[in-house]
Amino acid sequence: MEERLTKQFAFLQEVEKEKNIIRQTYLTAGRQENDAEHAWHLAVMAAVLSEYAEEKVDVLKVMTMVLIHDLVEIDAGDTWAYGNVPKAVQHEREARGADRLFGLLPEDQGQRFRALWDEFEAEETAEARFAHTLDNLQPMMQNHMTGGRMWKERGIALSQVLRRNARTARGSRALWAYGRSHFLAPHVGRELADDRDPPGRSGG
Amino acid sequence: MEERLTKQFAFLQEVEKEKNIIRQTYLTAGRQENDAEHAWHLAVMAAVLSEYAEEKVDVLKVMTMVLIHDLVEIDAGDTWAYGNVPKAVQHEREARGADRLFGLLPEDQGQRFRALWDEFEAEETAEARFAHTLDNLQPMMQNHMTGGRMWKERGIALSQVLRRNARTARGSRALWAYGRSHFLAPHVGRELADDRDPPGRSGG
Repeated sequence: MEERLTKQFAFLQEVEKEKNIIRQTYLTAGRQENDAEHAWHLAVMAAVLSEYAEEKVDVLKVMTMVLIHDLVEIDAGDTWAYGNVPKAVQHEREARGADRLFGLLPEDQGQRFRALWDEFEAEETAEARFAHTLDNLQPMMQNHMTGGRMWKERGIALSQVLRRNARTARGSRALWAYGRSHFLAPHVGRELADDRDPPGRSGG
Repeated sequence: MEERLTKQFAFLQEVEKEKNIIRQTYLTAGRQENDAEHAWHLAVMAAVLSEYAEEKVDVLKVMTMVLIHDLVEIDAGDTWAYGNVPKAVQHEREARGADRLFGLLPEDQGQRFRALWDEFEAEETAEARFAHTLDNLQPMMQNHMTGGRMWKERGIALSQVLRRNARTARGSRALWAYGRSHFLAPHVGRELADDRDPPGRSGG
């Protein structure tokens, strides 16, 4: 048991670094959010909003997924939704991070966590789709709470936000409809930048 | 549904303030931890360490409990483990915070969350006891990772740490034994201050 606990605590100490991974999203306090705060907020959202999942979900699975989904960024760094890192390059970096981080755990547990992260990435199960919906909605809510600051400062166009959220409704049509009308619409044509057409991916 | 979602998102936006509640615990990065980061770390610990719970626990319940256990500090502020706020005063402040915060949610959901927080506070179920074990262990691990800095700087004596952890083994004897030997023992007589005898309560 001592050896098993030593591996588990090596992992639990290593993941402390998630608190240092800074995201693009601003908090109302003025600073940018880190990955641990983001993951905590997603897990609370999972506890509150699971009733709106498109298909019935295992809430513990969704919660565990969102708690660990960004750990790979300890090695790979945060990849900005609207940045220009090719998806394949990002995935390759993150998969190496997953090998190392989940490899710190006892083998059985490391394999379970790795499978859960792979499932999140593949976005093919009800839980993974709902977890992605929350992961897209939280920065959108946070951007709204800060007057659309991130979208405005980085010159993000509405077309980019819509493209980045092309699949958000797959996990929950109700939540995407709410987010679009309450978090996005108030900033369209104001804080959101004028429509242009650069590359897009994840982050609100 | 619109009215229900509006209440749920009012709560989810309000709890963002948990990211501003600063704890006494230091991170390896040098700054002090906030409540959202602490709660995230506890929830990951729940995912990894539940096999060591003294009695079989509902992991989803433990996880939800640790995710929301400190929300009341948005109104009541962080009460330091080794500070001198009387327990009754702290609880009164926190109960008022719970009324307001969980009152933002739709009534059925607010009552469920409030009951879960009350259960955590009462520390009488297997889940609540295990959640408290994690809540005590995490700052101890974090203090160890920073060379015992908090204990040393604040002049915390071993007797205080032991008194503060008098019930930590109730949730898991195995985890308390590991924490005592790996996180506490390396600092006894070194970073931990000489034995004195001031008041004690929660925080590592």
